[in-house]
Amino acid sequence: MQWSTPLNIGIYIYDDAEVLDFSGPYEVFATASRLSNPTGLFNVFLLAEEKRTVSARAGYLVEPHYGIDDHPELDVLIVVGGVHTAELDKPDVIDWVARTAESTDLVASVCTGAFILAQAGVLTGLDATTHWEDQQALSSMFPDVRVIRNHRWVDQGKFVTSGGISAGIDMSLHLVSRLASPALAKMTARQMEYEWHSNEEPSPAQNQHTC
Amino acid sequence: MQWSTPLNIGIYIYDDAEVLDFSGPYEVFATASRLSNPTGLFNVFLLAEEKRTVSARAGYLVEPHYGIDDHPELDVLIVVGGVHTAELDKPDVIDWVARTAESTDLVASVCTGAFILAQAGVLTGLDATTHWEDQQALSSMFPDVRVIRNHRWVDQGKFVTSGGISAGIDMSLHLVSRLASPALAKMTARQMEYEWHSNEEPSPAQNQHTC
Repeated sequence: MQWSTPLNIGIYIYDDAEVLDFSGPYEVFATASRLSNPTGLFNVFLLAEEKRTVSARAGYLVEPHYGIDDHPELDVLIVVGGVHTAELDKPDVIDWVARTAESTDLVASVCTGAFILAQAGVLTGLDATTHWEDQQALSSMFPDVRVIRNHRWVDQGKFVTSGGISAGIDMSLHLVSRLASPALAKMTARQMEYEWHSNEEPSPAQNQHTC
Repeated sequence: MQWSTPLNIGIYIYDDAEVLDFSGPYEVFATASRLSNPTGLFNVFLLAEEKRTVSARAGYLVEPHYGIDDHPELDVLIVVGGVHTAELDKPDVIDWVARTAESTDLVASVCTGAFILAQAGVLTGLDATTHWEDQQALSSMFPDVRVIRNHRWVDQGKFVTSGGISAGIDMSLHLVSRLASPALAKMTARQMEYEWHSNEEPSPAQNQHTC
């Protein structure tokens, strides 16, 4: 895959989004960009329906850099999870996800962000995963999506979905590995003192529990 | 230790603070509070020198809930790392950390937040740790602090310091274990799909690298 740098990594957030779902990937791409040679490989930013303060889960207040109506062209779109249900009923958001997925080379979700991608119709016929608690619901709501259990993430080429919350960090490191190199991903994990699950390997949490 | 619930967990942030240093512990305490029985055991919030938008590392914009001159009484203070050097030269911040440490039962740091605690004089004569890259500097700047290597965190009772970035998640889960129960800490890690290093065990990253 050929990219012109820096790559624009847009993370879509909303009210009651799960804090680590977006801050984890943000940390990964920011750190990887700092460590890349030359530096500045990734330009990571937050997107929301409107450019106003987002009240993420547990009252965490964060400012999106752009609204969905006016943002730089994306190389990568990451849609996060949390209390995602209100997003499913927003035609402007779902339409934007569907349109952006067409013009973007790589689209990913963290946790229940997979429901938003599925609602936009982009996961039809693909393997995908989500938080272990929500896999049954994803399967029921979207029978055309093949829900995969016991994986930290599922890579289907253009579309990559991860399990819950911190699995988004593992997936983001995987994306760094794909977009740059395994060496940069490893260096990033080391800098973050994060024990990277560098394969789509079974998640211990997923192994211990059913949904 | 006897607490009246909810416990106020204040996380001190500043411009160029490392994103995961504060969002990781925030996620841990917010999730633990959601899973506690009854719910609402922890009230977690962000504190800054002033109650204005903080531009954390890589341009991540977050709103502190309180300034240091006007905030609820803390049960736990967590001071985070990042580009921490400007904080060391702010008498109002350092004085506030020193005063707050006197009136608070538990004080913790993530990553280079240990430099801020040390500057406030509260780590003198204690064991402490920080990011593997900064351990030599912490030791040189504060010879009265015994810098411990190869640990995810160091628990000295009232004062607990962690290694870099994601080690703050491990430490926060440890604090949940101390303040509530090991069962709640494990449940929180499972909900976050986080593989908790539940002991002050050697960090793989620290083992592989010298400072």
